[in-house]
Amino acid sequence: MERHPARVVAFSDAVIAIAVTLLVLEIRPPQDTRHLFHGLVTLWPSYLAYVVTFMLVGQVWANHHVMFDQIRTADRTVLFLNTVLLMDIAFLPFAASVLAGAFRDGHGQRTAVILHGIAFELAALLFNAIWQYVRRHHRLLVATIDPAGVKAISRRFRLALTWIAVGTLLGALLPPLGMAVIAAFIPFYWLPIRGEIARAQPRRDEGGPA
Amino acid sequence: MERHPARVVAFSDAVIAIAVTLLVLEIRPPQDTRHLFHGLVTLWPSYLAYVVTFMLVGQVWANHHVMFDQIRTADRTVLFLNTVLLMDIAFLPFAASVLAGAFRDGHGQRTAVILHGIAFELAALLFNAIWQYVRRHHRLLVATIDPAGVKAISRRFRLALTWIAVGTLLGALLPPLGMAVIAAFIPFYWLPIRGEIARAQPRRDEGGPA
Amino acid sequence: MERHPARVVAFSDAVIAIAVTLLVLEIRPPQDTRHLFHGLVTLWPSYLAYVVTFMLVGQVWANHHVMFDQIRTADRTVLFLNTVLLMDIAFLPFAASVLAGAFRDGHGQRTAVILHGIAFELAALLFNAIWQYVRRHHRLLVATIDPAGVKAISRRFRLALTWIAVGTLLGALLPPLGMAVIAAFIPFYWLPIRGEIARAQPRRDEGGPA
Amino acid sequence: MERHPARVVAFSDAVIAIAVTLLVLEIRPPQDTRHLFHGLVTLWPSYLAYVVTFMLVGQVWANHHVMFDQIRTADRTVLFLNTVLLMDIAFLPFAASVLAGAFRDGHGQRTAVILHGIAFELAALLFNAIWQYVRRHHRLLVATIDPAGVKAISRRFRLALTWIAVGTLLGALLPPLGMAVIAAFIPFYWLPIRGEIARAQPRRDEGGPA
Repeated sequence: MERHPARVVAFSDAVIAIAVTLLVLEIRPPQDTRHLFHGLVTLWPSYLAYVVTFMLVGQVWANHHVMFDQIRTADRTVLFLNTVLLMDIAFLPFAASVLAGAFRDGHGQRTAVILHGIAFELAALLFNAIWQYVRRHHRLLVATIDPAGVKAISRRFRLALTWIAVGTLLGALLPPLGMAVIAAFIPFYWLPIRGEIARAQPRRDEGGPA
Repeated sequence: MERHPARVVAFSDAVIAIAVTLLVLEIRPPQDTRHLFHGLVTLWPSYLAYVVTFMLVGQVWANHHVMFDQIRTADRTVLFLNTVLLMDIAFLPFAASVLAGAFRDGHGQRTAVILHGIAFELAALLFNAIWQYVRRHHRLLVATIDPAGVKAISRRFRLALTWIAVGTLLGALLPPLGMAVIAAFIPFYWLPIRGEIARAQPRRDEGGPA
Repeated sequence: MERHPARVVAFSDAVIAIAVTLLVLEIRPPQDTRHLFHGLVTLWPSYLAYVVTFMLVGQVWANHHVMFDQIRTADRTVLFLNTVLLMDIAFLPFAASVLAGAFRDGHGQRTAVILHGIAFELAALLFNAIWQYVRRHHRLLVATIDPAGVKAISRRFRLALTWIAVGTLLGALLPPLGMAVIAAFIPFYWLPIRGEIARAQPRRDEGGPA
Repeated sequence: MERHPARVVAFSDAVIAIAVTLLVLEIRPPQDTRHLFHGLVTLWPSYLAYVVTFMLVGQVWANHHVMFDQIRTADRTVLFLNTVLLMDIAFLPFAASVLAGAFRDGHGQRTAVILHGIAFELAALLFNAIWQYVRRHHRLLVATIDPAGVKAISRRFRLALTWIAVGTLLGALLPPLGMAVIAAFIPFYWLPIRGEIARAQPRRDEGGPA
């Protein structure tokens, strides 16, 4: 039941790509084309939910590769946790739709922000669970990763866990603030974080940086 | 018309990934955002149908790889049966939606559980048909599999056939019991089953366990 | 602008896989769960449209590989025609939905069968156009194909063109007959056709039959 | 955080393939099957939006490969810009749906053409941004591209930027004219453009033209 990660990654990529592209189906074109511009403007919560969710899933995708680049073989536990992770990611179009609806109607933002935050928090939890598991089972890791690389990835995943948790809790008090905190994770992510990748050697089938 | 299984597997993976991700479209966000929390709670049958169907399709995906890892070449019959299998898998979002609707409304659970069960039973039937076919046509199997490995996979696929059949029949009597039996197949699956994989050598392009 | 066919085939596979999996979204679960069994039964035209369209697209997928296995490089014209082909295939969920609706309501079957037939006829036309084009530009073909192999594929694609045309025309007179003729192409397809594959050597990156 | 472009391209291909195939979901089958032919005919703006958007995305796909064929490694900035590009492409089914609705109802065409144009203009902008970025960071480019090849791609991407901008601005004055100009980019694209590809050597894993 152990699997080379290439297949798992390809399947995961497909699910992530589909989930992220389905987000657009939750934005319904305005029915009243007589005031189309106005109708499009009132959809702003849908655009916002779309952008925040899409960009966060973009990070999930990148992190999924960062993690699986260091996994030499996926055993039953990794496969199981990864399936639960995919199930959570595939659920995000629903969470994004609920979020947009709540901000559009002006009701239920608290509930919607918590639902959306929990979906991402669960993803962060599963990332941490998978990583801690392979960390404890050295044979599942590639040989080229050193303790510093392992720690750097652990730090990155714990940070996501904390950041999303804080955002979700703040969202339970003040929904727009919670969303702002979670959205702030996007620009933060794209700032360089030292350590994990520079040290971790790319796999032979990856090519990687020169 | 014979095909290297890599292409067939890639196409099958895509269909499975899409089918499983489309499941979320069947969960409609509550219209009434004034009582959003309540509205989200009443959707519990949708979440349940989502989780059970997603996790079962996860097993279908894993088993599909277990089987095609042992197939050296896919002839016309294998291609045909596999196409029917994909057609059945792609139908599952409909079955899951019917299931959720029935439990939400409190009507038609019997019918819905049977429909959902039959869709999975048909998948199990097709797995058994493909495997028995390649078993009888040795040249379609990889050279590295031994009789014990062949038998282990046969046992696994026959077990799924029986398990789902029992769950569906029980569901015809008592729908929640049937669902519970079928859902119980998920944790069972992730317990290690000896034999088939340990013995079957991974294909060269797979890497596989060390 | 010339491309190795591997990328074109991968992209085409993705579009075909998505189109075929979206077919299920056109089958709407019955709203009235009090008479769920009856409601499911009245959806029979949707199931029929689903099965016929899915299996025919399965053939389109197989033929696409048969053709591109023999194409060494895809030039601008091949890329253009292939894009039009994909646009036609991605349109099929709409045609299938119209077909199901007409048979369910008992109105407009003639129009619906013609629409559905034209969509497949256009696909057949594009297959013939691509194949005749690469036939006339030898450098686009792999070196291993011989004139008999080329002819066998030409025959196969012309047959599809004729078969679908006849089915569509008959459907304009008597819709169920037209559908029956088009559906009959499915079992016919899975009977072995001699010549094209046996002679055409598989590409090195394919593995292929032993 | 640097990545071999193969993974990025595969993920991008998946998103593009899904976005383009979801376009069909925006074409709703006529409810009134008693006048099905008439109902299908009145959907012409949907077909038009479908064809124009699909074919333009086909060009986006081809250009994405033209660009990433020359990228040796994708750094953080390229990954970020590419994620924004995918977010924009995944938004196109919404823009196409708004476009079709406006032309069908005879209201809001101006707004709809501008929305549709801006979505493609943003894509063109991101193509230019990515390309100018890798141009200024030589180490991100493959070694085989020469200055003439770099310039040819720059020209091609700048042309798209200008063409779509002109079409969108004209569409703000006269919507059908704007659409015609944008649609005219499709046949133009498929005429051969000298320089960039002939000079740029294909990557080893590409095979490429003989």
